[in-house]
Amino acid sequence: MSLLDSLPSQQIIAWRRHLHQHPELSFQEVQTAAYIKDVLETFPNLTITEPVENGIMAVLEGAHPGKTIALRADIDALPVTEETDVPFKSENDGIMHACGHDAHTAMLLGAVEVLTKMQDKIAGKVKFLFQPAEEMPPGGAKMLIEAGVLNDVDEIYGCHVVPMIPSGAIGKRVGAFSANSDVFDLKIIGKGSHAMMPEAAIDPITIGAEIISTINNMVARRISPLDNAVCSFGEFTSGQAANVIPETARIQGSVRTLKQETRLKLRSMIEGAIENITKMYGATYELQFDFGYSSVVNDKDCVDNVMEAATQIVGEQAIFEVPQMLGGEDFGMYTDVKPGAFFVLGVGTAEDGYKYINHNPKFDLDEKALPVGTAVFVNTILSISAKTLAGQEMAATN
Amino acid sequence: MSLLDSLPSQQIIAWRRHLHQHPELSFQEVQTAAYIKDVLETFPNLTITEPVENGIMAVLEGAHPGKTIALRADIDALPVTEETDVPFKSENDGIMHACGHDAHTAMLLGAVEVLTKMQDKIAGKVKFLFQPAEEMPPGGAKMLIEAGVLNDVDEIYGCHVVPMIPSGAIGKRVGAFSANSDVFDLKIIGKGSHAMMPEAAIDPITIGAEIISTINNMVARRISPLDNAVCSFGEFTSGQAANVIPETARIQGSVRTLKQETRLKLRSMIEGAIENITKMYGATYELQFDFGYSSVVNDKDCVDNVMEAATQIVGEQAIFEVPQMLGGEDFGMYTDVKPGAFFVLGVGTAEDGYKYINHNPKFDLDEKALPVGTAVFVNTILSISAKTLAGQEMAATN
Amino acid sequence: MSLLDSLPSQQIIAWRRHLHQHPELSFQEVQTAAYIKDVLETFPNLTITEPVENGIMAVLEGAHPGKTIALRADIDALPVTEETDVPFKSENDGIMHACGHDAHTAMLLGAVEVLTKMQDKIAGKVKFLFQPAEEMPPGGAKMLIEAGVLNDVDEIYGCHVVPMIPSGAIGKRVGAFSANSDVFDLKIIGKGSHAMMPEAAIDPITIGAEIISTINNMVARRISPLDNAVCSFGEFTSGQAANVIPETARIQGSVRTLKQETRLKLRSMIEGAIENITKMYGATYELQFDFGYSSVVNDKDCVDNVMEAATQIVGEQAIFEVPQMLGGEDFGMYTDVKPGAFFVLGVGTAEDGYKYINHNPKFDLDEKALPVGTAVFVNTILSISAKTLAGQEMAATN
Amino acid sequence: MSLLDSLPSQQIIAWRRHLHQHPELSFQEVQTAAYIKDVLETFPNLTITEPVENGIMAVLEGAHPGKTIALRADIDALPVTEETDVPFKSENDGIMHACGHDAHTAMLLGAVEVLTKMQDKIAGKVKFLFQPAEEMPPGGAKMLIEAGVLNDVDEIYGCHVVPMIPSGAIGKRVGAFSANSDVFDLKIIGKGSHAMMPEAAIDPITIGAEIISTINNMVARRISPLDNAVCSFGEFTSGQAANVIPETARIQGSVRTLKQETRLKLRSMIEGAIENITKMYGATYELQFDFGYSSVVNDKDCVDNVMEAATQIVGEQAIFEVPQMLGGEDFGMYTDVKPGAFFVLGVGTAEDGYKYINHNPKFDLDEKALPVGTAVFVNTILSISAKTLAGQEMAATN
Repeated sequence: MSLLDSLPSQQIIAWRRHLHQHPELSFQEVQTAAYIKDVLETFPNLTITEPVENGIMAVLEGAHPGKTIALRADIDALPVTEETDVPFKSENDGIMHACGHDAHTAMLLGAVEVLTKMQDKIAGKVKFLFQPAEEMPPGGAKMLIEAGVLNDVDEIYGCHVVPMIPSGAIGKRVGAFSANSDVFDLKIIGKGSHAMMPEAAIDPITIGAEIISTINNMVARRISPLDNAVCSFGEFTSGQAANVIPETARIQGSVRTLKQETRLKLRSMIEGAIENITKMYGATYELQFDFGYSSVVNDKDCVDNVMEAATQIVGEQAIFEVPQMLGGEDFGMYTDVKPGAFFVLGVGTAEDGYKYINHNPKFDLDEKALPVGTAVFVNTILSISAKTLAGQEMAATN
Repeated sequence: MSLLDSLPSQQIIAWRRHLHQHPELSFQEVQTAAYIKDVLETFPNLTITEPVENGIMAVLEGAHPGKTIALRADIDALPVTEETDVPFKSENDGIMHACGHDAHTAMLLGAVEVLTKMQDKIAGKVKFLFQPAEEMPPGGAKMLIEAGVLNDVDEIYGCHVVPMIPSGAIGKRVGAFSANSDVFDLKIIGKGSHAMMPEAAIDPITIGAEIISTINNMVARRISPLDNAVCSFGEFTSGQAANVIPETARIQGSVRTLKQETRLKLRSMIEGAIENITKMYGATYELQFDFGYSSVVNDKDCVDNVMEAATQIVGEQAIFEVPQMLGGEDFGMYTDVKPGAFFVLGVGTAEDGYKYINHNPKFDLDEKALPVGTAVFVNTILSISAKTLAGQEMAATN
Repeated sequence: MSLLDSLPSQQIIAWRRHLHQHPELSFQEVQTAAYIKDVLETFPNLTITEPVENGIMAVLEGAHPGKTIALRADIDALPVTEETDVPFKSENDGIMHACGHDAHTAMLLGAVEVLTKMQDKIAGKVKFLFQPAEEMPPGGAKMLIEAGVLNDVDEIYGCHVVPMIPSGAIGKRVGAFSANSDVFDLKIIGKGSHAMMPEAAIDPITIGAEIISTINNMVARRISPLDNAVCSFGEFTSGQAANVIPETARIQGSVRTLKQETRLKLRSMIEGAIENITKMYGATYELQFDFGYSSVVNDKDCVDNVMEAATQIVGEQAIFEVPQMLGGEDFGMYTDVKPGAFFVLGVGTAEDGYKYINHNPKFDLDEKALPVGTAVFVNTILSISAKTLAGQEMAATN
Repeated sequence: MSLLDSLPSQQIIAWRRHLHQHPELSFQEVQTAAYIKDVLETFPNLTITEPVENGIMAVLEGAHPGKTIALRADIDALPVTEETDVPFKSENDGIMHACGHDAHTAMLLGAVEVLTKMQDKIAGKVKFLFQPAEEMPPGGAKMLIEAGVLNDVDEIYGCHVVPMIPSGAIGKRVGAFSANSDVFDLKIIGKGSHAMMPEAAIDPITIGAEIISTINNMVARRISPLDNAVCSFGEFTSGQAANVIPETARIQGSVRTLKQETRLKLRSMIEGAIENITKMYGATYELQFDFGYSSVVNDKDCVDNVMEAATQIVGEQAIFEVPQMLGGEDFGMYTDVKPGAFFVLGVGTAEDGYKYINHNPKFDLDEKALPVGTAVFVNTILSISAKTLAGQEMAATN
C-alpha cells in the first residue's frame, strides 16, 4: 500500500471543512487554536504547547537521533465574504478561509497523525507549527521566532495551495520565491493657500506628483531590469475643494522586491527622493516605512529533499517549476533565519478553469489534493530521517 | 456744504449694521431682500421690482433725457463664523458679512436716498441693482443679465470695500482687474489591481501625477510670462490602501487668468493634456470644466467718469492705482456685456494694521468710509448727467 | 521757432548714416569711439575724456549750480549681416547696427551740439555718456559705473528706438521696464554604462529631464502669477549613441524676471532643484549661474521729467504707455545705482508695417524721428534746470 | 582515449591565433572568409559554399539518414584597439577579436576536422555555418536565413566564450537567454524662439523631458516587474545657446526585452507616449524605431542535447546555470525560426580574476578551453545521431 493510500484522507477533509466553516481573522484565532489543540491531543507521543497566543506547537521525538525539522501550517482566515455554495460555507459573516489556510492546517494535522505512528522511522525531532496571523503583518512567524521555537530547528518546510495548477501537482522553486513586501505611508506637509496665490503656498499635490514620478524613475533607471522590483501607489489623498491649495498630502505605497539588497537599495532611493523633493519645495514630511514580510528564499538542499519525497508520491511529471512571484508570505521570516523550503500544492481543477485565485470570494479547492500535501510532508520527514540513519550506519561501519 | 457733508451718514451706517447682524447666504437672501425693499419704499419717485429671486431693482427717472446708468451692490454673506467683537455681530450662526457686501448695500441705499431728491439734476435713468449671490457661481449677475435688466443700460458701476488700503481712499484700475475664475473636476478612470501586478492595472495615480506636472509645464512654458495665469490643484484623491492600485483618481483644479484669450488657450491646453495623457496610458476620463466668473475689465472712459467724481470727493492724493489681482468677482459678467467700472473703496485703519482681509472671520471695516462710497456713486451720476446736459446745450446752441 | 525746428536735423541724420555704415562689435568700437570724439571736439565748452576703453564722456558745466544729469547713448553694433537696401548699408561684413544704437548715438550728439550753446539755461552739469558694449554681458554700463563716472550723478536718462510704434511717438513706463536677464550653465555628472545595465549607471538624461520638469513646476507653482518670470532652456546635450548611457549632460538656461526679489527667489529655487535632484540620483554637478543685466527700473519722478519734456515736443496724444517686456538692457545697471528713466522712441512707419524688429537683418528706422529724440533729451535737461532755477529763485525771495 | 584527448588541440589554437592576428570588421571579413575556406578545403567529404558574402557553409553528409543539424560560429571582429601583450596581437590597427569570435571559429573548424572523419557515426547532415557580421545589425544571421540555409535544418547550435566563468566550464540556460535589442531615434520638431517668449515657442526640451519621464513611468508601471525590460536613453541633443529656445530635439534610446510580447508592448507604449506628448504640446516628430536582434530563446530539448553531451566531456560539476542577460546576440534570429541552443563556454582563469570582459581592449582567454568547445560540438552531433540510430533500430526491430 502506498503512503498516499494509507492516509486518513476523509479525516483530513473533515478537519478542513470544520475549519472552513469556522474561520477567524488574524490574531483572533481563538477557536481555531483550541480546535487544533483538541485534535492534537487525540494523538500519542506529542508534547503540545502554545508558545504564542493562538499558536500551537506539537513536538514529536523520533526513535533515533537526528535533525530537528519544523513543519508549518498557517491557520488564520481573511476578511472576505464567502460567495461559494459549499455546504460547509463560512458561518462567520465577512470572514472566509479564502487563502486555503484551512487546507494547510488539515494537511499538517494529517501529517501529525501519520508520523506519530512512525516514531521508529524518525531520526531526530519534528516540530509541527500551527502558526496564527499569516495574513496580517507583522505576522505570526515573527512571533514564533521571537518566542524561540526555531532556535533548535535545522530545517523548516511549508506549503501553499494554489488553484492555478492542477490538483495534486507540486510546484518547485529554488531561491527567491515570494517577495519582500514592504509598505510606506507618507505625509507631505506643505502650506495651504487660496488657489490664486500659489506663491503663498507650498503645494503638496505638485510635490506628491513629483515624488510619484521620481520613484518611477528610480524603479526604471536605477534598479537592474533583471532584478524584479515594483513600487505601487495605493493612495494619494490631498484637499477637497477646487479653489483651495491644500496643506498636506498623504501617499501610501507598496514596495515588492526579491533580493534583500534590492529591498534596501529601493527603500533608500524612495527615502532619498522624498527627503530631497520636499526639501527643494520648502515642505517637510513624515514617513512611516515598514518592512513587511521577507522574501521566501528556498534553500536548494531543502528543495531537493521535498522534491525527492514528492516525486515518490506524485511522479516526476507532476512536478512543475514555478516562476517567481511578487506576493508576500511570512514564511520568508523563517527562511531569513533557517534553511527551508516552501512548496506549492495544486488544488485547481480543469472544470473551474483554475480561475478563482486565492483571496477571491469564490475561491475553492479540490479536496482530493489534500492527502497529497500530507503525504509530501510525511515523506519529506521520512526521507530526511532515512538519510540521517544511512549516514549513521555508514559512520558506524567505518 | 460739500456733497459728503450732506449725506445721511448715520443712516447708512445704521443700515449696514442691521444687514451685518442678519447675514444670509448666497441664493438665500430672503430677509435681506425684504429689508432692502422696505427701505427703498420709503423713498419717493422709484419704480421697485424684484426681477430675480432675492434681487431688487429700483429705477429712478431723471428729469432730462440721457443715458441709462446702472449702479450695483451685492447683498449676500459668507459661510464664515464671525470672530469680531462688534455689538452688531452676526446673529446667524456660521454666516457672516465677511466680504463687506453689507457696506456695499448700505452705501448704495444712501445713494438712492440722495439721488431720489435730485431728479432735476439727472439726465437719463438710474437703475439701482441689489444683486444676490455674488459669492457663489454661477452668481446673481448672470441671473440679472438673463432677466434682461442690462438690456437698456449704457454703463454700469460698482464698488468693493477692502481693508488693505486706508479708509476713504479710492482704488483705480483701467483694464483687467479681477480674474477669469474657472474650475475643473477630473475623474481619471484607470484599472485597479494588486500592488504586485502593475501590468494588470492602469495606474490612475501615476497618470494623475503626470497630468499635474504637464499642466505646470504648460503654465510655465506655453503662456507668456507677461500674461498672468495660474492653475492650482485643490484636490487629488485616489485609493485608500497601500497594497491596492486604485481604479480611479479625482483631481480638482482652479484656473485663473486675466485675458479671455489666455483663458481659452489654457483651458484648451489642460483639456489636451488630460486627453493625451490618459490615452497614452490606456485610461479614460470624465472632465467637467466650468467657466466661472469672467474677469472684470474696466472701461477707460467709465473709470475716468468715476475718478473725476471721486477726485472731487477725496482729492487726487487719495486716488491709488491698484494692481491686477487674481480673485474672482461676478461684476465681470456685467463688463462682459456693457462698459463699466468697478472701483475699490479703502476701509482699513492704521490701528488694525489693515490685516484682516476679506473672508477672514475677524474682517472689520472703518464705517467712516461708507459715506465716501455713497458720495462717489452720487457724484458719478451727477457728473455723467452734467456732461450729457452740457452736450445737449451745446447741440441746442449750434 | 520750436525746439524741434531749431535742431540740426540733417546733421543728426548724417552722423547716424556714417555710424550705420561703419558698425563695430561690442568691446571693439575703436573707430566708432574715435568718430564720436572727433565730432565732440567740434563743439565748445566740453570736457572730453575716455573713462573706459572705447567709451567717451563729454561733460558740460551749466552757468548755474544744480544737479548732475547723465544722458547715455550706447554705440555698439551686432553680429548680423545686413539685408536692407539703404545706400549707407554696413561696410563691415557680418556686422550691422540692427538695434539702432547708431540712432541713439546720433541723437545724443545732436543734444550735445544744442546744449553746448545753451549753457546759460543749464543749472548743474550734464554728463554725455557714449557707452560701448551694451549688447554683450557684462556690458559697458558696468565698466562706466566701476570707473566712477556715475558717482556724482543725480539722475540718468536714456532712450531706445523701436520700430513697432509710430515714428516720433514716445513710450513711457514707470517701474520695471526690461527684465533681469540671467543665465546658467549646468553640467550633470552621472556615470556612463551600457544601455542594458542602468543599475550600473547614473543616468544624466533622466536627471536632466527631472530638473527641467521641476524648474517648470517652480515657475508655475512657486512664483506669483502676477510676478512675471520665465526660465527657458536653451540647450540639453548628452550622449551620442543609442546603446550607451552617457556620463554627463549639459543644460543651459536663461532666466528673466522683473523684480530683484523674484530674481533671487527663482535663482535659489533653481539651485535647490539642481542640488537636490542630482543628490537623490547619486550624481554630482557643476553650475555656473551668472547674473546678467538688471531690470531697468524707471523712477517715477524721472519719468515725469522726461514725459513733461516730451509732451511739450510731441503732444499728449503721442505719449504711449508701454508694457513690461522681458528683454535685457544694460541701462538697468545704472538704475540699480541711480534714479533714472529709460524711454522709448518710435521709429516705425505704417508703410513697412512696423515689422522688422530690432536685431532683424532688415531692421530699418524712420530718420524723421531722430530729431524728436534729440529734442526730448534737450528739453529734459532744460526742464530740470528750469525747476532748479525756479527753486533757487523761490529760496532767494523767501 | 577520451574524445577530448583525441582532438587536434594545437591546431585549433593555431587557427585561433591566426584569426586573432588578422581581425576584420563586420561585413568586411574578406580575408577571414578566405582563410576559413582554405582550411575547410583541407578536409574530405565536405560541400563548401559561400551562401552570403563573407559567409562560408560546409555541409557534411552522414552515413545514415537523420536530422539536419546546423553548428554556427561567428567570424567578425570589433573596432577596438587591442591592449594585450599576446605575441599574436592584432596586426590590424583599431580592430580586435575582443569578443572571442576567433575562438568560436577555431573551435568549429576543429569540430569539422573531427566530424569529417566520423561520417559513419553520423545520422543525417551537419551544416557548419561560419557567419559574418554578428556585431553589427542587421547582422549576418539574417542574411543566412534569407539565403535559405536554414530551410532544411532541424536544430541549430552555437556557443559563446566568456571569461567570467572558469575555463572549460559550460553555461546552461533554458528559455530566454539574451535580449531583444531594439533602438529608436526620435526627432521632436517644436518651434524656436527667444528665451523671453516661451509662448511663441514650442519648447522641444520640455517635451523631450516629459517623454523621458513618461517612458520611465511606462517601464515602471505598465510592464510586469517579473518581465525584464529596460529603455535607456543614449542621446538627448537640443540647442546650443542659453537664451534661444531651440527648434528641435533629438533623443536616441535602446530598448531591451526578453519576451517578444513585452518587446511589442513596450514599443507600442513608447510610440504612444511620443505621439501623445508631442501632440499635446503642439509639436510634431519623426521616429525611426528599429527592431534589432531577437532574444536567443533556447529550446529545452536542444539544451538537453548539448548538456548531455557536455556532461560527458566536463562532468556535471562543470555545468552552471547562467542567468538571463540583456545583451544582444544575433543567434536569436536563428531561434526565432528553428529550435536551437546557445551555450556558454568558460574561458576565464583565476589568475586574471576573470576581469576583462568581452569587448574590453584587454580581453583575453584561456586557450585550454577551446578543445572543450570543439568536443561539445562534436559530442552533441554524435549524441543526436546515436539517438536517431537507436530510434531507427528500435523501429526496425518492432
